[in-house]
Amino acid sequence: MKLRDLAERLGCRLEGDGEAEIARVAGVEQAGPGDITFVSNPKYKSHLIGTRASAAILGPASAGDQPTPCAILRSDEPYVAFAQAVRLLMPAAAPPPGIDRLSAIAADAVIGPDASIGPFVTIGAGASIGARAIIYPSVIIGPNARIGDDCILHAGVSIRDGVSLGHRVTVLDGAVIGSDGFGFARQRDGTHLKIPQHADVVIEDDVEIGANTTIDRPAVGETRIRAGAKIDNLVQIAHGVRVGERTLLAAQVGIAGSTVLEDDVVLGGQVGVAGHVRIGQGAMASGKTGLTNDVDARTVMSGYPAVPNVEWRRSQVLVRHLPDLKKRVAELEQRIAELEEKLAECRTSDR
Amino acid sequence: MKLRDLAERLGCRLEGDGEAEIARVAGVEQAGPGDITFVSNPKYKSHLIGTRASAAILGPASAGDQPTPCAILRSDEPYVAFAQAVRLLMPAAAPPPGIDRLSAIAADAVIGPDASIGPFVTIGAGASIGARAIIYPSVIIGPNARIGDDCILHAGVSIRDGVSLGHRVTVLDGAVIGSDGFGFARQRDGTHLKIPQHADVVIEDDVEIGANTTIDRPAVGETRIRAGAKIDNLVQIAHGVRVGERTLLAAQVGIAGSTVLEDDVVLGGQVGVAGHVRIGQGAMASGKTGLTNDVDARTVMSGYPAVPNVEWRRSQVLVRHLPDLKKRVAELEQRIAELEEKLAECRTSDR
Amino acid sequence: MKLRDLAERLGCRLEGDGEAEIARVAGVEQAGPGDITFVSNPKYKSHLIGTRASAAILGPASAGDQPTPCAILRSDEPYVAFAQAVRLLMPAAAPPPGIDRLSAIAADAVIGPDASIGPFVTIGAGASIGARAIIYPSVIIGPNARIGDDCILHAGVSIRDGVSLGHRVTVLDGAVIGSDGFGFARQRDGTHLKIPQHADVVIEDDVEIGANTTIDRPAVGETRIRAGAKIDNLVQIAHGVRVGERTLLAAQVGIAGSTVLEDDVVLGGQVGVAGHVRIGQGAMASGKTGLTNDVDARTVMSGYPAVPNVEWRRSQVLVRHLPDLKKRVAELEQRIAELEEKLAECRTSDR
Repeated sequence: MKLRDLAERLGCRLEGDGEAEIARVAGVEQAGPGDITFVSNPKYKSHLIGTRASAAILGPASAGDQPTPCAILRSDEPYVAFAQAVRLLMPAAAPPPGIDRLSAIAADAVIGPDASIGPFVTIGAGASIGARAIIYPSVIIGPNARIGDDCILHAGVSIRDGVSLGHRVTVLDGAVIGSDGFGFARQRDGTHLKIPQHADVVIEDDVEIGANTTIDRPAVGETRIRAGAKIDNLVQIAHGVRVGERTLLAAQVGIAGSTVLEDDVVLGGQVGVAGHVRIGQGAMASGKTGLTNDVDARTVMSGYPAVPNVEWRRSQVLVRHLPDLKKRVAELEQRIAELEEKLAECRTSDR
Repeated sequence: MKLRDLAERLGCRLEGDGEAEIARVAGVEQAGPGDITFVSNPKYKSHLIGTRASAAILGPASAGDQPTPCAILRSDEPYVAFAQAVRLLMPAAAPPPGIDRLSAIAADAVIGPDASIGPFVTIGAGASIGARAIIYPSVIIGPNARIGDDCILHAGVSIRDGVSLGHRVTVLDGAVIGSDGFGFARQRDGTHLKIPQHADVVIEDDVEIGANTTIDRPAVGETRIRAGAKIDNLVQIAHGVRVGERTLLAAQVGIAGSTVLEDDVVLGGQVGVAGHVRIGQGAMASGKTGLTNDVDARTVMSGYPAVPNVEWRRSQVLVRHLPDLKKRVAELEQRIAELEEKLAECRTSDR
Repeated sequence: MKLRDLAERLGCRLEGDGEAEIARVAGVEQAGPGDITFVSNPKYKSHLIGTRASAAILGPASAGDQPTPCAILRSDEPYVAFAQAVRLLMPAAAPPPGIDRLSAIAADAVIGPDASIGPFVTIGAGASIGARAIIYPSVIIGPNARIGDDCILHAGVSIRDGVSLGHRVTVLDGAVIGSDGFGFARQRDGTHLKIPQHADVVIEDDVEIGANTTIDRPAVGETRIRAGAKIDNLVQIAHGVRVGERTLLAAQVGIAGSTVLEDDVVLGGQVGVAGHVRIGQGAMASGKTGLTNDVDARTVMSGYPAVPNVEWRRSQVLVRHLPDLKKRVAELEQRIAELEEKLAECRTSDR
């Protein structure tokens, strides 16, 4: 594709040679002639100076910018333009439509037009698969589960019975949706009686669920992931949790039972959220934060127990300097002891 | 089922209309006519006032209780009564007994009566499956593994060779039991020589193991999960660990090699336990705690490095107020400097 | 095997009866006659006194050593000798070479000589499997993936399209290699546009990858695990990460996007590393550490935010003693108030 055409497709302003042929998107360090590149992290902006790429997608020009050795596509949303460039130049190779003969599909399951069902896929009784859905090998879809149009379920995913996925949901390899919530009632003899967990899990449209992530179903009520939420790998979503629209959960996050994340929440890697709390709209938590109480909308939290990020940074600097503080207190104690002694002398001498 | 009959089956005292027909257990907010509900968390007790449920399971009456708009089943163990109500009213839909023709079962494997073996299940040579066991699709059971009666192995579970499961063990989707422990010997050239891990893993009766949880086998000795332990999703149990009876491990807990959890231990989400330590009977740790040393029986630990919970709460409040403490120290330093100066003046004027 | 022969094979010095027949390696507490044992943890050295083993592998003799009731094999590298003893005496039972008829192998996939392909394995178009590779049941290998010689892929592993594994790579059950990186561009309306992640993942020779671990691919560039790295269970490696040679990552570690671990890094369990940082050669972090900045070579880090381990230990002791420090400050405030009063009196009386 000519750079000029690419600029037009991406809605970018072109600076440089529009006739250059662009075949690939590549990282700034790997890029060569015929590649367009992008720098996501300001730390690496200087790498652009030495790039061999034919073009780069950048944000609006600013005063301190160094000249680049390649053509530029300017965008107010450079990251979106980059995403679109990847989509245009490097489309996914999807498996062809059709049902593999080595699959086990219940007689009454409904498979939408142009769906692709790989080998060793199990689809239970009463389940339905939407149009153009791609079901990779060894996926297991339980009875009465519903998979919407244009869903992509990667290898080894388990969708338990009755779970409902909206349209354009992507589930990465090995994720489990609808496993039993961790619910037990402690009996008088100390043993734990399982509370059967058969209630609903609903995954709304445009959700992405990471590899080996687990989403549990509750005994009553429902677990719900609302539209547009994006969940990374190895995340645990317990029974009865509600994850708000457009929420971003980084890898290894854990959300305990019945907690509500409102819309647009962003949780960093390895964050833990206690059960039965509500995290307000647009609230954020940095990596490893432990949230044990409700969080107000648009607050940024850190640490465990979590406090507002600014406060956490301040107190963590002080923790680091505790040896210093302790020394200052010890010095004060000595100085005050000396003072007390001197004053005593002073008053004695007064008499 | 009539409420009167349900009360009798659950061993509850009935307050209200025993003739009401109960068809379902539902959450307090979703419940409607024909539903019985339950409030597990005291925070939500007030929700009962507005419920449309026909009945609610509650604990013994207490002074401040608000009147409820529905019939009540009183129980001394309301959570157990709730669990039993779910079991009665919402039984699991189990797959029918029989062996799917698309399974790969070794000629000498022993399959107990009324077991259900789904499609794409592999059962290795010399393995045995107990009576009434349910093996969901795509489960892999290695050679010589033993699966007891009434076990339920959900989709995609991997039970490695020689692993032994007792009776009534439930393993959720994608869990791995008997994978190689992380054991390497560092050689002079800095490379790591694998120590083959072929020793035993024993899962005793009535254990539940969560989705995508991993339980490793050791090189020598055994890894053992004792009877009645319940393990949530994405938990890591390293080689040679012993988990005590009735222990509860919340999601994303990690236990390093050769550690012993005695009976009735309770670990919150994302807790980590170092290798070669012993956690005493009934000890607890709140979420995200890091246990690096032995813990006495019945102690509640928190933080990292872990300290008794009461102590941790107190010191964390102080961490939060460190800026204040630092300011007080700075003020003291100023006041003492002034005092020293005044006293010097004072003594000078004395002369 | 006679103990004398074993000593020779392991390069150990024999102390005691070389004629003893050794059949098994066993833990010090389980070992009986015919077993050779080993104590990895100094804590358990005293257990040797009561062992019923026929022999034990030990390091060089030292002054305080108690006499042992069994023969001894002395080694300068006792852990390596132990590893080799396990390899000699307890070899793995590998499945026989051959391709199971219940597998789905693309017509143009290349399967090396003496490879073993289990039931329900999917191998995509253009993929290649090396000589003597063992592919356990229900593994999924995507189109154009390359698996080197002597690789072992355990049950349920997913190797996505185009991923490349070197020789002698072991991947434990349920691990996912080449899943989509967590990359989205936030659009003006607040929704997240997926950046397709189709670039390379390269796993070099002699790497081991734990059960249910996930390794993502990037949009551009590559994710690379260098030779001899050993990765435990439930670890998350994000897109574009580079893991150095011989690096050890304990269970539940998470590495965010584009981060570089240089060679010989060692990270304890549940450690988190932020994106776009560089961890220097031979650096270490204790369990649960959160690394958010570059780390110098050979540094040992702890805590979150991470600081050098020595510093962390010191400040954590002080955190624990904060109630004491606070009390000392309060006492100082009282003493200083008294002093100020006395001095004021003193000066008043001077006038």
